[in-house]
Amino acid sequence: MTQSSEPKGRALVRVQDLTPDKADQLIWLRARVHTSRAKGKQCFLVLRQQQFNVQALVAVGDRASKQMVKFAANITKESIVDVEASVRKVEQKIESCSQQDVELHIERIFVVSQAEPRLPLQLEDAVRPDGEGEEEGRATVNQDTKLDNRVIDLRTTTSQAIFRLQSGVCQLFRDTLTKKGFVEIQTPKIISAASEGGANVFTVSYFKTSAYLAQSPQLYKQMCICADFDKVFCVGPVFRAEDSNTHRHLTEFVGLDIEMAFSYHYHEVIESITDTMVQIFKGLRDNFQTEIQTVNKQFPSEPFKFLEPTLRLEYTEGVAMLREAGVEMGDEDDLRSEHLARTYDTDFYVLDKYPLAVRPFYTMPDPNDLKYSNSYDMFMRGEEILSGAQRIHDAQLLTERATHHQIDLEKIKSYIDSFRYGAPPHGGGGIGLERVCMLYLGLHNVRQTSMFPRDPKRLTP
Amino acid sequence: MTQSSEPKGRALVRVQDLTPDKADQLIWLRARVHTSRAKGKQCFLVLRQQQFNVQALVAVGDRASKQMVKFAANITKESIVDVEASVRKVEQKIESCSQQDVELHIERIFVVSQAEPRLPLQLEDAVRPDGEGEEEGRATVNQDTKLDNRVIDLRTTTSQAIFRLQSGVCQLFRDTLTKKGFVEIQTPKIISAASEGGANVFTVSYFKTSAYLAQSPQLYKQMCICADFDKVFCVGPVFRAEDSNTHRHLTEFVGLDIEMAFSYHYHEVIESITDTMVQIFKGLRDNFQTEIQTVNKQFPSEPFKFLEPTLRLEYTEGVAMLREAGVEMGDEDDLRSEHLARTYDTDFYVLDKYPLAVRPFYTMPDPNDLKYSNSYDMFMRGEEILSGAQRIHDAQLLTERATHHQIDLEKIKSYIDSFRYGAPPHGGGGIGLERVCMLYLGLHNVRQTSMFPRDPKRLTP
Repeated sequence: MTQSSEPKGRALVRVQDLTPDKADQLIWLRARVHTSRAKGKQCFLVLRQQQFNVQALVAVGDRASKQMVKFAANITKESIVDVEASVRKVEQKIESCSQQDVELHIERIFVVSQAEPRLPLQLEDAVRPDGEGEEEGRATVNQDTKLDNRVIDLRTTTSQAIFRLQSGVCQLFRDTLTKKGFVEIQTPKIISAASEGGANVFTVSYFKTSAYLAQSPQLYKQMCICADFDKVFCVGPVFRAEDSNTHRHLTEFVGLDIEMAFSYHYHEVIESITDTMVQIFKGLRDNFQTEIQTVNKQFPSEPFKFLEPTLRLEYTEGVAMLREAGVEMGDEDDLRSEHLARTYDTDFYVLDKYPLAVRPFYTMPDPNDLKYSNSYDMFMRGEEILSGAQRIHDAQLLTERATHHQIDLEKIKSYIDSFRYGAPPHGGGGIGLERVCMLYLGLHNVRQTSMFPRDPKRLTP
Repeated sequence: MTQSSEPKGRALVRVQDLTPDKADQLIWLRARVHTSRAKGKQCFLVLRQQQFNVQALVAVGDRASKQMVKFAANITKESIVDVEASVRKVEQKIESCSQQDVELHIERIFVVSQAEPRLPLQLEDAVRPDGEGEEEGRATVNQDTKLDNRVIDLRTTTSQAIFRLQSGVCQLFRDTLTKKGFVEIQTPKIISAASEGGANVFTVSYFKTSAYLAQSPQLYKQMCICADFDKVFCVGPVFRAEDSNTHRHLTEFVGLDIEMAFSYHYHEVIESITDTMVQIFKGLRDNFQTEIQTVNKQFPSEPFKFLEPTLRLEYTEGVAMLREAGVEMGDEDDLRSEHLARTYDTDFYVLDKYPLAVRPFYTMPDPNDLKYSNSYDMFMRGEEILSGAQRIHDAQLLTERATHHQIDLEKIKSYIDSFRYGAPPHGGGGIGLERVCMLYLGLHNVRQTSMFPRDPKRLTP
């Protein structure tokens, strides 16, 4: 066991750097045993680091003893080993490995950390596309088995690619907004009043009293606007005690939140948000092709399409189009459909002007028709990823609307009071990170894009 | 009320852009009324946007009517106004404003959002240094009043500077680590087992069962290492149900967390972390001088000093030095003192090799002396900001140590199981964002660097 007894001087080479220019060099490498196959006096290993792997050979006579070949053959899959090996160019490309032009001839091999012999799932099964190899009786792994053994499932090329892309989404989101003059804020998650109404909120024991888990940073990001931060964003967990067991609901997910003061019209806010999304789409397209291709191998999907400027339709237009297409729905129904996306040949669009009745109490009514509101949703591949609006910035109107929604005014006193001392017109929105990643990649379950998903039935690992 | 009835075409100028090159231009501006002083046929306003302000004048005859001067004089402080004004160069610098070379001659003025006439605190009182103006009977504002009215307190130049710097710390942290090849991860906050033992953990009602709020992302960031992410970081809330009412404890704070596999010795981890901290210190020094100076005006402090490479002492050396200096302490006492900082003329150092008994169960014991461990704390201005260690990556030793700490093995089963299928040696640490900001700026209460602080007695706003 490596217990830091002494610093060792030797440099470790990365698998991805094993190219023909290293030919005939003697190197040290630390990697996992991906597969192992003994064959007479030889043992073939595939050594893996994240998405990269290389073939390695221990052969009697070459540089190894009989005992060493036997020792190597007995190393369990997924164990971590240190090897000293000579890099050799190969005549024929090794199609099954990421490093196709070289192989390693191992001279020494040490086990750094040994895996138990029985793995709860096989990595090659976990990345097999649905239906492939069924005739040969090859297994795929069902989702609960994957999630129960998430640490192993996360080692697959598909998972590595998904979460590297997710890290990229966060970075692109923040970098774009920082360039636009937004400030990052940190908002409390333990709060004294339910930010989105009393339903679907988790309760926390808080010393001798109780508190809630924030269903969104809504009230706090607005308070930052009242506190003159002008344009703010935050990235953090949001909590929904919703007993929904669907492909797109989690009880805890990561919110990418935006709030900004605007000059005259909330469409300024829509433009800022859609431009941010477009920058994210472009950044992913330009910098994450390897990850996208890797995920597509297991889960084929069309490249994500978007327009510039982003398509914006009014809710009523959307409803009318769907009715025309034969989809039955009421005026105030939640609207999500792939029909609009197909019609306009875009996987990203905005629906504007939702009915006031279906939006939270702090939503600004439409000045021209009180049945509607200055609110919008954004959709990727026909599913909602963002909900947003102009917010009410007048304490009196806010009080009226909260009362109408039967919200206990005493509980949101400090929120309403924030609007009593001058508040600029403002708006914003909240984006679900896992949904963005799922829909961008054309995946079909949000649990695939949450490292350790939480739903009504899952609290572990 | 701005309800987005129509988009107005006029461009709004920013206060910070009001410089002599705009002289004699007619501009539109939206800003807060910072102060207002009527004097006969004139009304002097100071208009503010965040940390920037400019003097403005409404004068009868100049371009305004008598009624307009009266109207302007009656606008309450902190109201938001739109003004049309002509920019004028001034002969004598206006020392009290950030824009010293120009003033505005107002032609038209509209109230966008009116503040109530009685403010719960005055901004000029909230930024007054302790003790200043006491003779003239000028007030300062106590901390609870500030926090109770946080939205107004956050408008002060001091608060604006603190939280812009905090946003900078997060950005520098992430940028430095991304450059070093780290991947950003998102870890769950609702968990089924207390990550740092059963004490000090908040309980959440979770449908028909109960769960905990994560006291750190510890178990999850380690699981990501077992899942081959190699080097990870995360920024997110951590929760401590500690009934500590001190200047440096919060029940919810933002953790900047790092975890990485290393090759041979955990000092590789210490070097990565200290270098990250040094990059943050340099970035703040080079890019946030305005913010630092602004905070110093109210809270004077010495510039933050650091060495390269970072000073690293062993815990026992630190204890010995303190004993020599006459500080009484036991061998296993928590060690924090400004004495070491003074001796070595640095505000940042590492103490290494803490006694095993005072560290969490997952800490790797020192191979040379089982009384100690491969663990470390980092200090800024003599106070702890990070706690870290090499972690145990062997399931058997981890089980032994958890049992020794009387931890329910069933509850951390999925965590311990992550080490059964090959785990690389690794280590990391968790940094408190609010403490870093407080200590870098030489402030004395962590509530000053938390936008909406949570402590055993405070859940609002």
